[in-house]
This record gives sequence, structure tokens and C-alpha cells, in this order.
Amino acid sequence: MSAESSIPETRVLAIASHVVHGYVGNTMATFILQALGCEASAINTVHYSNHTAYKQVKGRKTPAEEIMELYEGLKQSFLNDFDVLLSGYMPSAEAVQAVGKIGRDLRLNAAGKPGSFFWVLDPVMGDQGRCYVPEDEIPQYKALLREADLILPNQFEAELLSDTKITSLTTLATAMQALHRTYQIPHIIITSLRMSASGTISPSTTTNPTHLTIIGSTARRDLSPRLFRLDIPAYPLFFSGTGDMFAALTVPRLREAAASAGLLGTPAWRSPDDVPAADLPLARAVERVLESMQAVLGATAAYAARAVEVLEAAEGRAGLGGGADDDDDSAARRRHLALMKASEVRVVQNARHLLLGPEREGEPPRVKFRAEEVRVEGFDGRAGEPKPDELGVVNLGVGARKGEGEGAVLVGRPGS
Amino acid sequence: MSAESSIPETRVLAIASHVVHGYVGNTMATFILQALGCEASAINTVHYSNHTAYKQVKGRKTPAEEIMELYEGLKQSFLNDFDVLLSGYMPSAEAVQAVGKIGRDLRLNAAGKPGSFFWVLDPVMGDQGRCYVPEDEIPQYKALLREADLILPNQFEAELLSDTKITSLTTLATAMQALHRTYQIPHIIITSLRMSASGTISPSTTTNPTHLTIIGSTARRDLSPRLFRLDIPAYPLFFSGTGDMFAALTVPRLREAAASAGLLGTPAWRSPDDVPAADLPLARAVERVLESMQAVLGATAAYAARAVEVLEAAEGRAGLGGGADDDDDSAARRRHLALMKASEVRVVQNARHLLLGPEREGEPPRVKFRAEEVRVEGFDGRAGEPKPDELGVVNLGVGARKGEGEGAVLVGRPGS
Repeated sequence: MSAESSIPETRVLAIASHVVHGYVGNTMATFILQALGCEASAINTVHYSNHTAYKQVKGRKTPAEEIMELYEGLKQSFLNDFDVLLSGYMPSAEAVQAVGKIGRDLRLNAAGKPGSFFWVLDPVMGDQGRCYVPEDEIPQYKALLREADLILPNQFEAELLSDTKITSLTTLATAMQALHRTYQIPHIIITSLRMSASGTISPSTTTNPTHLTIIGSTARRDLSPRLFRLDIPAYPLFFSGTGDMFAALTVPRLREAAASAGLLGTPAWRSPDDVPAADLPLARAVERVLESMQAVLGATAAYAARAVEVLEAAEGRAGLGGGADDDDDSAARRRHLALMKASEVRVVQNARHLLLGPEREGEPPRVKFRAEEVRVEGFDGRAGEPKPDELGVVNLGVGARKGEGEGAVLVGRPGS
Repeated sequence: MSAESSIPETRVLAIASHVVHGYVGNTMATFILQALGCEASAINTVHYSNHTAYKQVKGRKTPAEEIMELYEGLKQSFLNDFDVLLSGYMPSAEAVQAVGKIGRDLRLNAAGKPGSFFWVLDPVMGDQGRCYVPEDEIPQYKALLREADLILPNQFEAELLSDTKITSLTTLATAMQALHRTYQIPHIIITSLRMSASGTISPSTTTNPTHLTIIGSTARRDLSPRLFRLDIPAYPLFFSGTGDMFAALTVPRLREAAASAGLLGTPAWRSPDDVPAADLPLARAVERVLESMQAVLGATAAYAARAVEVLEAAEGRAGLGGGADDDDDSAARRRHLALMKASEVRVVQNARHLLLGPEREGEPPRVKFRAEEVRVEGFDGRAGEPKPDELGVVNLGVGARKGEGEGAVLVGRPGS
């Protein structure tokens, strides 16, 4: 009996970072999972006072042997019967290896019960062209991918893991196919792509995009990608923990969608080849994840804007009244800290949006999202069928629409 | 804007243990606080795989300097503006000292803003005559009490801290008065007393009580106790984490009751002397806490009973079918582990009972609790008033009634 009866009861082992203040890593994931009725067991890979975007932090990384020891503690008491492993930030190559051992052990436990164990792996390595993790972690991550059922890289991480620069629809499909085929990964979601409606893709270092595109795929039997997209408006503010929020919401929502499609007893919850991309349980899950995220982030942006007004009013008073003995550097630092604090995701206060429960009067209505198939010539996995366009031109559906309907189809050139 | 609009937005620093599996300490407190719309910042005093009643556990105690370092991390980024400190299990005398420093620093921050900081201290030291913590922690705890606004000892801890054996109404009132007066503690709740309707109190080592009594008091200005009681049926099963559950629920419920009484700007949210014991905000809070707890523990007991049936059926099959190569010790150990697992509090699945939201059809209705004043001769703080009974006999109201009403008054002898 969970918070929403459509979500099956789910035991999740969540391995990620912990912060005392704010919402990233496990601090984000645990609440979200629990709010949606899942049991969340948290092994924390770091114990920090706050997230690193504050630019100052105290605390400690968890040594790999402590991660293993906690898992051994669960195992000796038969407490490791998890349905899902959700793994996120790991601070060292050794930690990645430890999590690999844990994942393989859970997989082994579930052998003989197809679909009874599912690994959602968020390969947290970097963003916008910058690596967060030590260089020696990347090969360890690649070794891990083969074990995962679903990975959630951003554009930068997808490029790193597929060794493919994503600049066009063709290179996007190439990268997705490489991930499906090289690492045998059944499901992939690229959580943030700088992609235009016509299919042009900007480098992952592009700042201030007006919207972000989410690309998902569940491999066909031949491991060709089955691509869908959804577009979301980008908020003008930088929020930490949104990737963790996406990953945590995806666990119950994908389990719900897979249960509804009768796939929980199927290895890796894979849909038959005749299910179109936009009808995949993965697409259904992402639609609901985005509905929650946009509502919670919208409320957070409004809260942060009010907090910034208060901050600026106080700064104005201090400037007029004098008496501020901070130098400019110190004032800028305080301002940055206050801004970071004000933009912590308001996930607790907006839990009703996680559950997609009744909306309140006076609030903006929640935006519904609808996935659209993306067809890329040479990657449709249906060699016998006619291509959608004989001229090397690509049809792609455009997402990011409110409500149902329209379904505009734009035409662009692969590689343009 | 919190989950329930009657609960003010509350920033809580929770310092207690963390377990990967199950619900005790901060693992219990964080979810409860968040479910009720509070921001919960967790500093974890141990990192264990599971709670200790499993009789086997792996993990690590947090050294006192790491607790301090995490707090320093918050402080340097101005993230330590907490409304409430909730402190629980601490694994060493040094950890108690560290938490004392943190509490004093938070108190200092709030100086000049009466009522803006409140410390709920659960002096987790032992139960049923047995100490969990090193001997040298007890004097450290006593040094801490003076800083607290509300303490939540069980019978055994109340005896330890007050240096008073609680065997009767008079010794109960003496212990409460000692705690109010010696340590200047405004609010006290004894969370589990083995007390009969007539006021007889059994030793804290008494096993299998049929019910437990909760005794609360908010001191009058002269630091005399203002006692109320509530009785709850005891469940036949042992649940871990119920003390932590009580403490976590008390934070938002007391804040809600204090806000409703207009006391949030009053030092330590103290009620005027003319507020009768049973009308104290503390009594209102405990009533709601117990309503949630009984519903969640009732659902947990039902779940555990079903799990035990399944376990016994499986044992029966193993016994009949042979092939079990466990010796008796090993079988008993496995049985204990399975029982512990089955009796983890089902707090996530029953979050609606934390919020006291709508009940579901087919479920037992939630029991409402009502606090009743306990009057003990010589401790009524109203020297000028006539005593309720001139013969050394005590009037006490009996709680644990469903709904409103009746208000039976029993008569017992102090010290009997």
C-alpha cells in the first residue's frame, strides 16, 4: 500500500551523496522516493555540510571500504532484497568499483527472477565541459555501464561515455546506439540536450539555453535506439540537485509505467519491438517526472525571486545607511551564499506536486508533457520499411507542448 | 507553505543516528519532519547498516570532531538559522559535548529574538534498567539539560536524570519538579511510564505492560510541575524507533500548538500560569502525536503479523520437506532477523496518518487522545487554593479515552 496505489511497493538502495543542508544526491532522492511510497535505504558516498555550488563546504568523503562494509551489514541480516539500485555521485574510482560489486551482488541475488532487480545508474561525472570526478573514474564508470538497466547521463556525460561528440541528430543517434550496443544498456535518458526544434544541437558548454531537450530510448532487440524527445523551458536560475531529482522521480514512475504495461516480470522491463518510441513506459515515466519537476522548480523559482528581492532591499538599506564593513569580495561572497540558499529546491514544501495530487487554487496549473518520437534515418531499426524521407531528410516530432494534440513535424537535415 | 497550513514553516537541525535499512534516529526523524513540511537538516551521529536490535550491525560512529566540522560548514555559509534543534542518540561523551556546543551557539544566534530557537532534547541513554551509552556520558547529558526547552526521557532516563526512583505519583511529581528546578527545563514529557489508572507505578524494568502512560508538564513560573497524562495501549510487539518517532512528531505538533496559542514569540513557548495542565500546547501536541503513532503502529503490527504468518508457513514447509541444513542456533538467528525486519515501522506507507489527513475506507478509524490533568498534593503550585482532598488522597484524570467526554476521576493514595 503506497502513497499512490498505481506505484508498486518498491525497495530502493540509493547510493549517493549526503548534505546536511539542502537537497542534492541522497538528501533529494530519499525524500522523493519516500514521498512516493518507496522504501529508500541510503548509503551516503560523502557527508558534506552543503552542496559544492556554495563554493565552500566541510565534511568527508566516504572511503570505498565503508561503502562495502555497510552493504555487508545489510547482507548478513538478509536486508539486501532490493528491487532497484539507484546510484549517483561517487567520489573516487574505488567507490565506483565498490558500487559495481554491490550492483553485481544484487543482480546475482535476483538471478532466476527476471525483472526483479533493476539498476538506475546516474553517471555523475561532469557538466558543461567540466569533469567533477578524478580522471581515473571514467574507465571505472565505463566498466559499470554494462550492469545498468537505465542510465541518465547529461549531454556532456553521454559524449564522454559514448566517445561521440553530439552535434546533430545523426551523431545523437550514433551515441545512443553506441551506448545500447557497446554496453548492452536497455534504457537511456539524456537528461539535458541543447537541441533546437529543427534538430540542431549546440555544444554542452552553451550557457543560458532557453529550453532543454530530454532524449530517451529503449533499445529494440537488435539494440538499435528507439528515440523520443520532450522539451522543457529552462529556468533562468541555476538549481542544484535537479539531476538527482530527475533520477529519483524516474524510479517510481518507471516502475509504475512498467507495471501498467505488464513488464515487471520481463528482463530489464523491455518493451516488445512493436511499441513505438512515444508509447514506451520510459516515455510515460519521463512525462510524469517532468510534470512534477516543472511544478516544483516553478515554485522554487518564485520563492527564490522573492528571496532575492528581500536580499537586494537589505543591501540597499546597508548601502544607504553605511556601516557595512565588508569589502567588495566579502559582500559578493555573502550574496552568492544567500543566492545558493534561496535556490535550494523547495521539494518538501511542494510534495503534492511529486504525487501529482490535487492542485491548489491560485497556483499556476501544472504543465503536462507529451513525448514525441524522433526518427533518424538509418537508426529506425526497421530496415524493411520505407524510410520517412528518401532525400536524407529527417522527420522529428517536437515535444514541449502543453496538453495533448497538435503534433507539429519539423524537417531538418541530419548533421546540420 | 507547508504540508499542513497550520504548521508554521520550520527549519530543524536533527542530530541523531543514521541507518541504511529501517527507521530509527534520523532515518525516522527526517522523513517525519519532511512529511509534515519541515526542512530537516541531518547530522548523523552513527552510520550503521541497521538498528542494533537486529543484534548484528556494521558501520561506524561519527567522531565528535566530524559532528563539529559539519556544523562549522553550515555556519560559515550562514546556513545555521534553525528554528529547532532536535537531538537524539549520541555515541560518546565527546559527541554530547559537541552537541552542547552546537546548541549553545544556536541559542546565542537567537538571542534577542525570544522563542525563535527551541531545543527538543531526547536524552537517549537506556531503557528497562539498561544503559545504552558509556557511563561517562551521563554527567555530560546532565550538563546539557540546562540548555534544553523540552526533554523526552523514558521512565528509566527520567529516573537517571532526576536521581529519583519513580514508584508513585509523589515520586513522579518529585522527579518532574527536580528536572524543572535543577535544570531549568520548561517542558518535559516522560514518554513511557508503567502506571496504573489508580496511580501505582511499576519499575521501568516491568515487561509486557498492557498500556503505557505518557506524562507531560510545562513548568509554572515557580518551576512547579503542571502535570498531564495520556494512556495508550501497548502493542504486543517490540518496535524500534518509536521514541524517535515520538520526538520527531512532537516538533511540528508543538510548534503548531504554540503558534495557535500565540506563544512563538515567548521565551521557550511557555504558557501563562493560569493555563490548566490539560489545556497546555504541550498536551495538545502530544494528543496529535499519539493519534499519528497509534495509527502507524497499528498498521505496522498488522503488517508484521502477516509477515510472521508467512515466515511460519515457510518454516513449516522447510521442516516437513527436510533439507534445512541450519542448526537450531542459526534458525533462531534467522527468525530473529526476519522478525526485526517485519517489525520496522511502516512510516512511509502510512504517511497520511502523520498528516492526520483523510482516513481510508476499510481501515480502523484513528483513535483520538485527550490529555487529563494529574493533580498531586503539594505540587499544584497554587499554595493559596484549597487542596482537592484534605485526606492526602489524590485526584487524577484518566486519559486513553476515545473521543471527548466522560472524564472519570479515580482516587488513589500517593505512594501506594
